[in-house]
Amino acid sequence: MKHGIVLFGHGSRDPAWRAPMDAVALRVAQRAPEATVACAFLELQAPDLPSAVDQLVREGVDAIRVLPMFLGVGRHAREDLPVILQEIRAQHPGLALEVLPAVGEQPALLDLMAELALAR
Amino acid sequence: MKHGIVLFGHGSRDPAWRAPMDAVALRVAQRAPEATVACAFLELQAPDLPSAVDQLVREGVDAIRVLPMFLGVGRHAREDLPVILQEIRAQHPGLALEVLPAVGEQPALLDLMAELALAR
Repeated sequence: MKHGIVLFGHGSRDPAWRAPMDAVALRVAQRAPEATVACAFLELQAPDLPSAVDQLVREGVDAIRVLPMFLGVGRHAREDLPVILQEIRAQHPGLALEVLPAVGEQPALLDLMAELALAR
Repeated sequence: MKHGIVLFGHGSRDPAWRAPMDAVALRVAQRAPEATVACAFLELQAPDLPSAVDQLVREGVDAIRVLPMFLGVGRHAREDLPVILQEIRAQHPGLALEVLPAVGEQPALLDLMAELALAR
């Protein structure tokens, strides 16, 4: 299988906003050079998630893992994302699509943010 | 000195959105029981940062550390927050106010998100 990893964030009108996502994408690419890494956005900037997936599929990727980069777990992560994923699955029935819990739901990240709040 | 720690996030109309912030606040309170921990929001929910700081000062806190919980570093973190901090400093000249880099600017957090994207 050819693997793709998509970092999925909110998006912003401010072009500098995505810098941390690009920094994570670079780290992922360094650690998993065999995978194709992409960023995708819910709104305000391109590409959206379906477009990013289409592009990876065109490049021959047949297994995609999505990491939702949302700190708060509200409507975007709980309601918008499942609808988008359903559309992608309908569009690409042969694709192995795995979606991780949003970063804000991952205990290791919550632990680390608490450490950062207290670091001397 | 009596210490306060404020987790400062974007805010959302969705009440469930703040759950990860509350989870971090709980972890901070458990690890630093001597500190007073609060959450504050840029918009869409209360309290805002000046109100949270006012409340801590009323409780006798004289040293506050703020952790901006923004994954993307755009206008909110770069422009809105400094203006708010300036107002708070003018309002509370005796307060020791420390502001950490936003979580999205902290290399340890970027490393961890890359690990999460790749975890098996």
